[in-house]
Amino acid sequence: MAYIELGNNFPGIVGLLEYNPETAKPLLQLAETLLQGPSPLTKGERETIASYVSYHNKCHFCHTSHGASAAHHFGGDLSLIDEIKNDFQKTDIPAKLRALLNVAKKVQKSGKEVTPEDIEKAREAGATDRELHDTVLIAATFCMYNRYVDGLGTEAPESIEAYDEMGRQMAEEGYLRDREGTSF
Amino acid sequence: MAYIELGNNFPGIVGLLEYNPETAKPLLQLAETLLQGPSPLTKGERETIASYVSYHNKCHFCHTSHGASAAHHFGGDLSLIDEIKNDFQKTDIPAKLRALLNVAKKVQKSGKEVTPEDIEKAREAGATDRELHDTVLIAATFCMYNRYVDGLGTEAPESIEAYDEMGRQMAEEGYLRDREGTSF
Repeated sequence: MAYIELGNNFPGIVGLLEYNPETAKPLLQLAETLLQGPSPLTKGERETIASYVSYHNKCHFCHTSHGASAAHHFGGDLSLIDEIKNDFQKTDIPAKLRALLNVAKKVQKSGKEVTPEDIEKAREAGATDRELHDTVLIAATFCMYNRYVDGLGTEAPESIEAYDEMGRQMAEEGYLRDREGTSF
Repeated sequence: MAYIELGNNFPGIVGLLEYNPETAKPLLQLAETLLQGPSPLTKGERETIASYVSYHNKCHFCHTSHGASAAHHFGGDLSLIDEIKNDFQKTDIPAKLRALLNVAKKVQKSGKEVTPEDIEKAREAGATDRELHDTVLIAATFCMYNRYVDGLGTEAPESIEAYDEMGRQMAEEGYLRDREGTSF
């Protein structure tokens, strides 16, 4: 049970968006622009950053749903969700994504944690200004979504499999799609 | 100097919004809806929550500009900005606002920090579901704006007086106003 009476049984952020469609609109537009709009980062990379930051904020709903979306962008293997938990930065990923995840992890703690050296390391790995911008804003944005979801005590399915179809829809249909039974 | 080449000299988030008008649109729409749109919380209370969370995130630009906006809603005395820094919760403010600031401060740390007891205390002080919702989302949203502003190393004027006119405009004209010299 969420901390407030939502008037619906949707899990995680979905119940909150249904509760207040006025704020749902810009929140979904922001997710669509950042995760599906034009960016030099691939959609899979962006969803990975979102899932990674959400994991470090201990937000199960966002970590798992965006991890499932990232998995769908990369071919559908949901084991990526667990990989993101386990020292993901040290696994066999491209150097640029590793350096951007380092920046994202700093942002997760505080904007003030990002140092000129973090930025320089990302540039040396090939990151452009726009990639740095998008990484910081995605990380910052998930620090918002995660707090919204958990600060109001929403419920979320436990098992990873429950997020498979949600992740597919997010990856393939984006954030402004029609959601059956909802008003946003 | 910001960490990336913004192509403009606007301070704080203003330079970032000008750098990427695509994300500026939903970011400003969200601020407008949350801080100026319909809510049982007054605009002054909402700007106070925004400034309070930003202070705890050490974001000088957001703390001071939204503190100046709150001050304008309450009559124009900028000393509120410093009061927000100094054990504001313990000063002579209404019990409901005090309890909501407690929730906001928990959200600033992590959504997971908010307990059923924090929610109950706020209810006992008169807070409604919608006021709790708006408080959590405002606090969460400023955890995003603060990280965007500081994670990209933007610059901000130091003195409180530099934010007086900005705060007046935010309070009186909102977040979707025309900004001279900008494209958003």
